[in-house]
Amino acid sequence: MSEIITLVTDFGLDDPYVAVMKGVILGINPGAVIVDISHAIEPQNIAQAAFLLGTSHRYFPEGTIHVAVVDPGVGSRRRAIILKTPSAYFVAPDNGILSYVLAEASARASEPGTGERELSPGLEAVAITNPRFWRHPVSSTFHGRDIFAPVAAHLSLGVPLHQFGEAVHSVFALALPQPHIAADGLVIGHIVHIDRFGNLITDIGGSLIDEDMVIETCGHQIMGLSSCYSEADELLALMGSSGNLEIAARDDSAAQMLGAKIGDDVRVRNI
Amino acid sequence: MSEIITLVTDFGLDDPYVAVMKGVILGINPGAVIVDISHAIEPQNIAQAAFLLGTSHRYFPEGTIHVAVVDPGVGSRRRAIILKTPSAYFVAPDNGILSYVLAEASARASEPGTGERELSPGLEAVAITNPRFWRHPVSSTFHGRDIFAPVAAHLSLGVPLHQFGEAVHSVFALALPQPHIAADGLVIGHIVHIDRFGNLITDIGGSLIDEDMVIETCGHQIMGLSSCYSEADELLALMGSSGNLEIAARDDSAAQMLGAKIGDDVRVRNI
Amino acid sequence: MSEIITLVTDFGLDDPYVAVMKGVILGINPGAVIVDISHAIEPQNIAQAAFLLGTSHRYFPEGTIHVAVVDPGVGSRRRAIILKTPSAYFVAPDNGILSYVLAEASARASEPGTGERELSPGLEAVAITNPRFWRHPVSSTFHGRDIFAPVAAHLSLGVPLHQFGEAVHSVFALALPQPHIAADGLVIGHIVHIDRFGNLITDIGGSLIDEDMVIETCGHQIMGLSSCYSEADELLALMGSSGNLEIAARDDSAAQMLGAKIGDDVRVRNI
Repeated sequence: MSEIITLVTDFGLDDPYVAVMKGVILGINPGAVIVDISHAIEPQNIAQAAFLLGTSHRYFPEGTIHVAVVDPGVGSRRRAIILKTPSAYFVAPDNGILSYVLAEASARASEPGTGERELSPGLEAVAITNPRFWRHPVSSTFHGRDIFAPVAAHLSLGVPLHQFGEAVHSVFALALPQPHIAADGLVIGHIVHIDRFGNLITDIGGSLIDEDMVIETCGHQIMGLSSCYSEADELLALMGSSGNLEIAARDDSAAQMLGAKIGDDVRVRNI
Repeated sequence: MSEIITLVTDFGLDDPYVAVMKGVILGINPGAVIVDISHAIEPQNIAQAAFLLGTSHRYFPEGTIHVAVVDPGVGSRRRAIILKTPSAYFVAPDNGILSYVLAEASARASEPGTGERELSPGLEAVAITNPRFWRHPVSSTFHGRDIFAPVAAHLSLGVPLHQFGEAVHSVFALALPQPHIAADGLVIGHIVHIDRFGNLITDIGGSLIDEDMVIETCGHQIMGLSSCYSEADELLALMGSSGNLEIAARDDSAAQMLGAKIGDDVRVRNI
Repeated sequence: MSEIITLVTDFGLDDPYVAVMKGVILGINPGAVIVDISHAIEPQNIAQAAFLLGTSHRYFPEGTIHVAVVDPGVGSRRRAIILKTPSAYFVAPDNGILSYVLAEASARASEPGTGERELSPGLEAVAITNPRFWRHPVSSTFHGRDIFAPVAAHLSLGVPLHQFGEAVHSVFALALPQPHIAADGLVIGHIVHIDRFGNLITDIGGSLIDEDMVIETCGHQIMGLSSCYSEADELLALMGSSGNLEIAARDDSAAQMLGAKIGDDVRVRNI
């Protein structure tokens, strides 16, 4: 069991909500090592949190406990869960925030639609129902402080999974954007994230790409792949650090240059 | 003595001022565990820092050392102090930044006006006057680095309170906003904080509220209390996680919806 | 060898890039203590990162490992280096980001122009060429994750400098702004940084200043030096906490008041 606990929330860093969660964690496990993944998720944007967690969790040591709190349903009947994968633990509301984690862990990214997903072999989950590991009284508006933080802290101390609640066999997942591959080999993917540099991260994985392709998005064409940001003129396409096709601009923002936004099409065809 | 040191400042995170304080602390106590409460206090807004510290310190373990530096008078004759309460230490300029902490610790929230407050039984304070625990030379513009950080670090190593300076028996406090209760039971409170979600946090505590009330603010009426954010239509009122009445909007910003700002009246009356 | 690792990047805190670097570091050295200096460097602004690192590194304990990643040339043939000074280690692309560190360590701030600087006695550097300490496969766009973070982590575990690659004897440095001193004693310096408070930090060191001077910038005159922010009316000049002349405004932003920007002249003359 690792004592590393990561946090991804939509709480921002201006208010003390994140600090309060850390205070609660350290009160239970003074040795916990807490790492912020991001607190800049747009308020209530579960899909954005799911994506950022999905692209970052794999770089943490085995056994890391990831706490994800974007939780518009806090205090309602939505379930809270702990998911255990072969590499990590995830403590979160059961609202789709673990969609990318689940898709990766179960190698079933192609499952369509939004809804309950049966857990693949090798995955375990419990509903967080045992109040023994919560902070009391439990607020109906801040389960990050009263349920998710203390549960993560107790988990980091080695409390076994089944003590937090009964096993569940399915978890809620969002329909994830994924590229469509047409009969003529045309790949139609999407912009799924725009980073601080204005780089456009797509849902088009490396296996769909080779170097002799033309990439089209937002009315612009890019011929072939570059190997790094400083290589090409202005607009370029390359395999990004998360393994997906990325569109960037040399010393500039591709997002601004193209007026691109999340969800926009990206088309890849053979020359 | 805890080795947890929290920081609340108006330094922001773009400049390295906060990092420099952490470097100084770790140079004195390499085992210190440093937690950011917030560095997004508006420049020189002592009241805002006082409120955020007041609502967050209680979630940290006993003995935590809280360092609060919003300090427009740095380098002038304003006093620097350490306040010891039964649960924590506070290292700060004596400019009102501990007002909420003092009101809570002394259970005397109703004391009117701004000025010196005699310390209640159970509280201790010293003026930070012993230069032995400072960083030298002391800048006249950055006591966070040269006085508050090293004093907090030495305190976390177990240096007794009285070694930092002579005891003081009163501390400066701001007049805190508080609700007025009219003869007919009408409660007139105020918006004291607006969080990242646009939730309006008021100074109206739970004891003044029951479920059959109507809440008015910024020209809008809300009937009764909701129990969570996802329960009601659009605008709702509920008991927030800090124990005070809060006005929120389902999946939206109540602040934007109402054009609300800090200091605006919130009225609560029986139906 | 310290286990403190600081990070200065242009990655921002909204994306998980910084968190990913921390995950990689903790996977190699679970005992590492990671401190953020700033992640708000403007994208690709090497000079700004160089300045902020230059003014903050000296407040960290001896042996601290500073990782600086503003790296528009990532994946190209630009070199990556470790610089060892008598007080610290610096892990960075060899693109000028260590310019202030080098100038301070070699006491040769006056060297003109941009280019290779031979290392002064007491400094050592290696090119990071040994892939044994990298994360594989190495992305061509995120050496922060795959080279700089793991190298810093291994360094913090005590791996000797020479194991990371062959010694180098010169390092790339930017031409740093510095004041011009005219024959009549007029000092013409520059605004080199504007902080969150709107304070204007200049390149004019304390040795060039005495109290009976008049300071001119952006069409305004300031008579003499103040000793702290709260002392003067409105606009004031003082010796800032980093040892350089600083122009500030009482409870206000000097930058806004003057419409000042980085690079603007600041003139100091005897009255």
